[in-house]
Amino acid sequence: MTKYRLESDSFGQLKVPEDSYFGAQTARSLINFPIGEEKMPRPLIRALGIVKKSAAQVNVDLGRLDKTIGQTIILAATEVMNGSLDIHFPLVIWQTGSGTQTNMNCNEVISNRAIEMLNGTVGSKNPIHPNDHCNMGQSSNDTFPTAMHIAAVEEITHSLLPALQYLRDELHTKSISFNHLVKIGRTHLQDATPLTLGQEFSGFSTQLDNAIRRAKSTLPALYQLAQGGTAVGTGLNSVKGFDIKFAKQVEKITKLPFKAAPNKFEALAAHDAIVEASGVLNTIAVSLMKVANDIRMLGSGPRCGIGEINLPENEPGSSIMPGKVNPTQCEALTMIAAQVMGNNLTISIAGSNGHFQLNVFKPVMIYNLLQSIRLLADGCQSFTARCVTGITANEERIAKLRDDSLMLVTALNPYIGYDNAAKIAKKAHKDNSTLLDAALALELVTAEQFKEWIVPEDMIEPNNKPI
Amino acid sequence: MTKYRLESDSFGQLKVPEDSYFGAQTARSLINFPIGEEKMPRPLIRALGIVKKSAAQVNVDLGRLDKTIGQTIILAATEVMNGSLDIHFPLVIWQTGSGTQTNMNCNEVISNRAIEMLNGTVGSKNPIHPNDHCNMGQSSNDTFPTAMHIAAVEEITHSLLPALQYLRDELHTKSISFNHLVKIGRTHLQDATPLTLGQEFSGFSTQLDNAIRRAKSTLPALYQLAQGGTAVGTGLNSVKGFDIKFAKQVEKITKLPFKAAPNKFEALAAHDAIVEASGVLNTIAVSLMKVANDIRMLGSGPRCGIGEINLPENEPGSSIMPGKVNPTQCEALTMIAAQVMGNNLTISIAGSNGHFQLNVFKPVMIYNLLQSIRLLADGCQSFTARCVTGITANEERIAKLRDDSLMLVTALNPYIGYDNAAKIAKKAHKDNSTLLDAALALELVTAEQFKEWIVPEDMIEPNNKPI
Amino acid sequence: MTKYRLESDSFGQLKVPEDSYFGAQTARSLINFPIGEEKMPRPLIRALGIVKKSAAQVNVDLGRLDKTIGQTIILAATEVMNGSLDIHFPLVIWQTGSGTQTNMNCNEVISNRAIEMLNGTVGSKNPIHPNDHCNMGQSSNDTFPTAMHIAAVEEITHSLLPALQYLRDELHTKSISFNHLVKIGRTHLQDATPLTLGQEFSGFSTQLDNAIRRAKSTLPALYQLAQGGTAVGTGLNSVKGFDIKFAKQVEKITKLPFKAAPNKFEALAAHDAIVEASGVLNTIAVSLMKVANDIRMLGSGPRCGIGEINLPENEPGSSIMPGKVNPTQCEALTMIAAQVMGNNLTISIAGSNGHFQLNVFKPVMIYNLLQSIRLLADGCQSFTARCVTGITANEERIAKLRDDSLMLVTALNPYIGYDNAAKIAKKAHKDNSTLLDAALALELVTAEQFKEWIVPEDMIEPNNKPI
Amino acid sequence: MTKYRLESDSFGQLKVPEDSYFGAQTARSLINFPIGEEKMPRPLIRALGIVKKSAAQVNVDLGRLDKTIGQTIILAATEVMNGSLDIHFPLVIWQTGSGTQTNMNCNEVISNRAIEMLNGTVGSKNPIHPNDHCNMGQSSNDTFPTAMHIAAVEEITHSLLPALQYLRDELHTKSISFNHLVKIGRTHLQDATPLTLGQEFSGFSTQLDNAIRRAKSTLPALYQLAQGGTAVGTGLNSVKGFDIKFAKQVEKITKLPFKAAPNKFEALAAHDAIVEASGVLNTIAVSLMKVANDIRMLGSGPRCGIGEINLPENEPGSSIMPGKVNPTQCEALTMIAAQVMGNNLTISIAGSNGHFQLNVFKPVMIYNLLQSIRLLADGCQSFTARCVTGITANEERIAKLRDDSLMLVTALNPYIGYDNAAKIAKKAHKDNSTLLDAALALELVTAEQFKEWIVPEDMIEPNNKPI
Repeated sequence: MTKYRLESDSFGQLKVPEDSYFGAQTARSLINFPIGEEKMPRPLIRALGIVKKSAAQVNVDLGRLDKTIGQTIILAATEVMNGSLDIHFPLVIWQTGSGTQTNMNCNEVISNRAIEMLNGTVGSKNPIHPNDHCNMGQSSNDTFPTAMHIAAVEEITHSLLPALQYLRDELHTKSISFNHLVKIGRTHLQDATPLTLGQEFSGFSTQLDNAIRRAKSTLPALYQLAQGGTAVGTGLNSVKGFDIKFAKQVEKITKLPFKAAPNKFEALAAHDAIVEASGVLNTIAVSLMKVANDIRMLGSGPRCGIGEINLPENEPGSSIMPGKVNPTQCEALTMIAAQVMGNNLTISIAGSNGHFQLNVFKPVMIYNLLQSIRLLADGCQSFTARCVTGITANEERIAKLRDDSLMLVTALNPYIGYDNAAKIAKKAHKDNSTLLDAALALELVTAEQFKEWIVPEDMIEPNNKPI
Repeated sequence: MTKYRLESDSFGQLKVPEDSYFGAQTARSLINFPIGEEKMPRPLIRALGIVKKSAAQVNVDLGRLDKTIGQTIILAATEVMNGSLDIHFPLVIWQTGSGTQTNMNCNEVISNRAIEMLNGTVGSKNPIHPNDHCNMGQSSNDTFPTAMHIAAVEEITHSLLPALQYLRDELHTKSISFNHLVKIGRTHLQDATPLTLGQEFSGFSTQLDNAIRRAKSTLPALYQLAQGGTAVGTGLNSVKGFDIKFAKQVEKITKLPFKAAPNKFEALAAHDAIVEASGVLNTIAVSLMKVANDIRMLGSGPRCGIGEINLPENEPGSSIMPGKVNPTQCEALTMIAAQVMGNNLTISIAGSNGHFQLNVFKPVMIYNLLQSIRLLADGCQSFTARCVTGITANEERIAKLRDDSLMLVTALNPYIGYDNAAKIAKKAHKDNSTLLDAALALELVTAEQFKEWIVPEDMIEPNNKPI
Repeated sequence: MTKYRLESDSFGQLKVPEDSYFGAQTARSLINFPIGEEKMPRPLIRALGIVKKSAAQVNVDLGRLDKTIGQTIILAATEVMNGSLDIHFPLVIWQTGSGTQTNMNCNEVISNRAIEMLNGTVGSKNPIHPNDHCNMGQSSNDTFPTAMHIAAVEEITHSLLPALQYLRDELHTKSISFNHLVKIGRTHLQDATPLTLGQEFSGFSTQLDNAIRRAKSTLPALYQLAQGGTAVGTGLNSVKGFDIKFAKQVEKITKLPFKAAPNKFEALAAHDAIVEASGVLNTIAVSLMKVANDIRMLGSGPRCGIGEINLPENEPGSSIMPGKVNPTQCEALTMIAAQVMGNNLTISIAGSNGHFQLNVFKPVMIYNLLQSIRLLADGCQSFTARCVTGITANEERIAKLRDDSLMLVTALNPYIGYDNAAKIAKKAHKDNSTLLDAALALELVTAEQFKEWIVPEDMIEPNNKPI
Repeated sequence: MTKYRLESDSFGQLKVPEDSYFGAQTARSLINFPIGEEKMPRPLIRALGIVKKSAAQVNVDLGRLDKTIGQTIILAATEVMNGSLDIHFPLVIWQTGSGTQTNMNCNEVISNRAIEMLNGTVGSKNPIHPNDHCNMGQSSNDTFPTAMHIAAVEEITHSLLPALQYLRDELHTKSISFNHLVKIGRTHLQDATPLTLGQEFSGFSTQLDNAIRRAKSTLPALYQLAQGGTAVGTGLNSVKGFDIKFAKQVEKITKLPFKAAPNKFEALAAHDAIVEASGVLNTIAVSLMKVANDIRMLGSGPRCGIGEINLPENEPGSSIMPGKVNPTQCEALTMIAAQVMGNNLTISIAGSNGHFQLNVFKPVMIYNLLQSIRLLADGCQSFTARCVTGITANEERIAKLRDDSLMLVTALNPYIGYDNAAKIAKKAHKDNSTLLDAALALELVTAEQFKEWIVPEDMIEPNNKPI
């Protein structure tokens, strides 16, 4: 049997579970929003803890907040930050679009936990009031977007960037180790002129180089914090300079160069920086879709596909086909790519629907952004560790396909012209013969010329020789 | 300290938590896919239970499966169906794209639970083997999409449709109760000719009528089950007629008219029925976005907005602005609409990327579809109960705005022509005067004509009078 | 040197090219919206002609419009419908969101052309006024969405459905002609159990069967016409019954069962029927992406890909690689699929952003919908005629790949169990040997059993034999 | 009667209109792709001219191309660049996904025009061959993406950036001119604490500041040119250093800092730089949707909406409601925003579907990107010139709404606490009274305190006074 205490907000009294630190407004939100199961994500709760901790410190420094109260709020906020109070954050994403209820959830938890630390009565709002003290000089309207930015920056920095780097490095390593393997190229899914398997992988690692650059490019706009704008961007009930001192505190806690947003009206009313970041994640998802697709197609087989590379075998692949092994890491990663692309749309629609001084799609925006970051980070880690690092080349297969190909004929263009080279390729295709046989039959080159001019190893870079 | 037992799959032995019913392949997936937190949703686990139960019954009926083994599988599968074994389904969405690991998870749980019922050794695969018995005549490739369809149909039928009906009915009730209130219309956000508040709400309830029709229209394609196609659609290792008997069993359990899909190749390789259903959810989301936006704009104020309706006050709206009440249910619903629109994109991309005999984006597709259904259903329930039912008309405000409007001038078109009517409206706007004053000043109508011709109550339907 | 005449609207006088039938409001729009190049599409102009013709006829029948004026309007509107006045419709999509300027463009063109027919002075609005006569009892707000529906229905009926049927029929024909060819199946891009090439194509033709059903399902909602709602849905300045008589006229002209929309408020304020139709086109695009991708992958090669089918060679494929032939029809179709998916998003966003009595994203919605229909129709026609009909099977290649495959081992499951069958497959893969050799080496079956149990031709349907 | 000449490609002879410069491959594409109406856009044709001109110059410099031939190619390519040969580029977007046919179209046009300049026989390929000379050391696979980048950079630089700057500057100007006007703020569409109209506009201009930064951020990746990669990225048939010399030529012609892409494999196989740019355009569209929506809502009325600003009246707004003026420039811009968001999806899907050495969605990607850039640029120009610059404040209305508002009560928080302030606001709302009356009735402040503490002009920035 759950026991309850009574708490009240400006709407009246409510029963609150006795062992919870949250209060009336959280309890009211639980009643009013029985929608779905998606809770506020951990990185956001952590970021709210950072916000409350930083604000309390600045308010103490400014002499606006009693030192004991301030220090106790800081202790409680640190617990929120570190995760030990997570069970007291039960609210879902599908609440008010400003995130007010989660901001109040945080104010209530810190208030009650701090009251407890000071041996007061939990739920009494005394001596530490959730609004007057924990939310001092703040509004949900600046607090929540500030937490959104802090959470996004921390996750991109500590989670996504290392994962992208790991994938990039392993792709680069493979690229180097495969650099001697000349293989058939494929354009339009059709046989084309050769390249090395290393060159092919260098395309992948370059995509990841760019992904890293892109991910980093999202940070400057996300470093800018809305805090100090309070309700509508003016900073009413805050004090001049609060925003800059606050950002300094956040920087101190996170070791990341956060700044006060130069224009708070934009920072509350629009979340273009979130949309911008999501757009970059979308581009990264597009890159990963290409890389994972190519890798599973190169590894298709074992006997009836392309089969130029071997993917590590991680688990049984089929509940009915014995011995089957599937490119499951590629599948997880491409599913993630689809999710991130969809999330980007949700974020874009949400970002476009702000009205006047406030965008009220904040929870859904940060939920999707953090999910995208987490999935990309976890997905890249897993894909790298359990697929990329274990890829080996099937050298025999590579050589066979390469030497069968008709597109080596391209090397003849500079010598006999495109139209004549085309005749050779078409004849070989029609006759199911080798290029050499076709070339000789058409009397367009001699066997010696053929041997001199068509050398796959010479076809993997621009010509150096005078023609 | 967790204790472990050893289980094995075709890749070797693995430690499995002693108190879990899942086995080696599930444990292996937990190791191989440490990605995100999104677990397989309850409706899908339930649907897998239905699949296993139905398949066991058919296999017994066909004499392929020993009766005792079959009956015990049925008992265990019923537990899966009813949810009491949910904690034994720990796998995430981001696994193999066929859902094989979740199918094996289900086979393992049923096998071990059934073994336990028969007092055998959990983990021994004896006397009930996860593949040979629980998966008899099945493949993940037909089992998982079958479960996808069952889950989608049950959720649409039992959750979404009642919620849409509830919202439709309450909007319709409001429409009727508001039908006498003549108010200003607005097109291009600008004042236009009048209509009743009831007519305005009838537009909303018609959108919901259509939403219900659309949601129902998704069912016929979803009733079609892939089961019987086994690995690639041919039905290898199943028996002729299995598919039809299976669908009958599912119908018996669910009381819903499931059918064997006429072409199993399509049913495995593509999930167009899921994309189709998601497209409908997208259309419903678009409708809800319009309805919720209009309602919050009509309720904007209290003093500086439109203010024609009053929305129920459910909770404090601001952590800084005392007494503020916000349209939070509209906000939750519009956030949901944005999510559903994004999910539709994820599903569409996933659906378009199938290769050959199998689409391997199954988990991400059903995860998004079920999330969309759940959120729309919960969102409509909450929005109806906590917003729509409590809406009242602000009759004083409605009357004031209506009578101030310049667009009543439209009623003069049939009498004095468009160009003359325009002159009156422009003059009144410029002079900030009433239409009557402007009309008289321009000597285009008499006061009597004005009074006779401009009657807002006569402007809310087509003319019946001869002109 | 262009010559001009002077025309005026309620904003004043404007120069209009002397040889054009459009008037002041069109000329004003050309000045005010110098944006992009996308003109109103032909099917919409045609539909506007149908609207004006039908409205004039009903107004004459109702005795509201002078017979001579009405008949002349009908003649001019017929010219608009048939396309001979297209050069007089210069306006772009990026104008007012109600399409008012295009409605007025149509009113002006018909007015001036009709005045000319009656030997009046073009531009004089006498004896036929663009608003008072051509737009009698109408508003842009009902006229434009009516034209949207008519255009969409005509294009879906006369253009898209035949194209889908053509593609479906040719895929079905191929399916039948390929039905004897047993080939390797592929799941996860990896070798799987066999099926026939005909079965594979039957999956495609079933997708098209469903596409046809889906395309047809959009029509009932699109048959409903907004006409009669006038400015805000009330029908002000129209007369009772106008809507039904109007729909009958449209039915008579188009031979398609158009109806008056039962709720005009919904029909003006939302365009859910357009979103619904676009959602179906999105699903069709998803299906086509799968079909075209599979066909180009099956035809990949000629020597280093899958190569199980031969695609027709339509043109030189490369400006540098002689003799290269590419699956260009697949490429056009998949580009179209991507476009249609993007268009669906534009339409969904536009549809979600209506306010109050009017959605003002009408032009962008119908532009995207008609582009999607046109591209899908043209794309399917071209893809069928220039790719599908010419596909042939590479029987030699099909047989070779099938007989090499390890997944035939699945046929042993019912005899020796999944785990033993897996051992055989793994050994053969590791040793690069045949399944038979591996099976014998492991002493799990005899050569006789192997020969009896593993028969690819028996693996393409469920078992009929008792086990 | 069109006259024809005969031309041939490697597939045989074809009739080509006598007065056209294009040749057999273009004519063949016209036959094979009768799909839609969307032609290759002008900026891309221009860019192809730049490519051919630059390549010819480098080939001459390298001594690979005869000087006379080279100089004549350069002259003809210059004509392509400048637009005088546009009618000879009839091909649609829906062709081969590599753009090969348009590259050949360009080679053919330059070849024939250059032959003509040298008094040769058009169509003879002599003395200037479309492949061997015009395409020397090139492939469609590097030429077309190079042209994509050049076109995108030129359009962003010369068209989009100036338009964004114009809009930003005018918004900024308005912001300054409105800075003294204290008005009610609105969050959740509900009345909130005050700000100035200038502050509100500063949020818009900050969004545009960021839009400009974002648009510029796309350029570095787009400056990188694929040229020199030839067919698969290796540069086969080109010569070492060609890529760098080529980029220098392009820089010289365009005055823009183009560079050789460091990895040509990535540059052909993926178009992540295009996706990245489109993602930025999507973010800009999101910003513009917010700005245009706010402006039309602030200008809603004239009598029954918000009405705080007056929008310029540009044209008659209704074909039925005389005197109606609508925010049509906002409507055009928001329709454009929806289009750009949909285009971003098309581009993302297209970008994710590359295979191996080549992405074959090139035409659809550049068509959508260039459409987005053009529409955003034209839309911002028109919106600024015809809407933003003409906006005036409705000072009377602003003052009235501000002084009526209940949310001024927020200023009491620091003095009497949140809970007491809430009581005042709620009482005033319930009684429909002023805040002062409610405050006095509740005896929470004195009239003097009220007058001192609630000063809207003091509520538009953080507090400076000690409390």
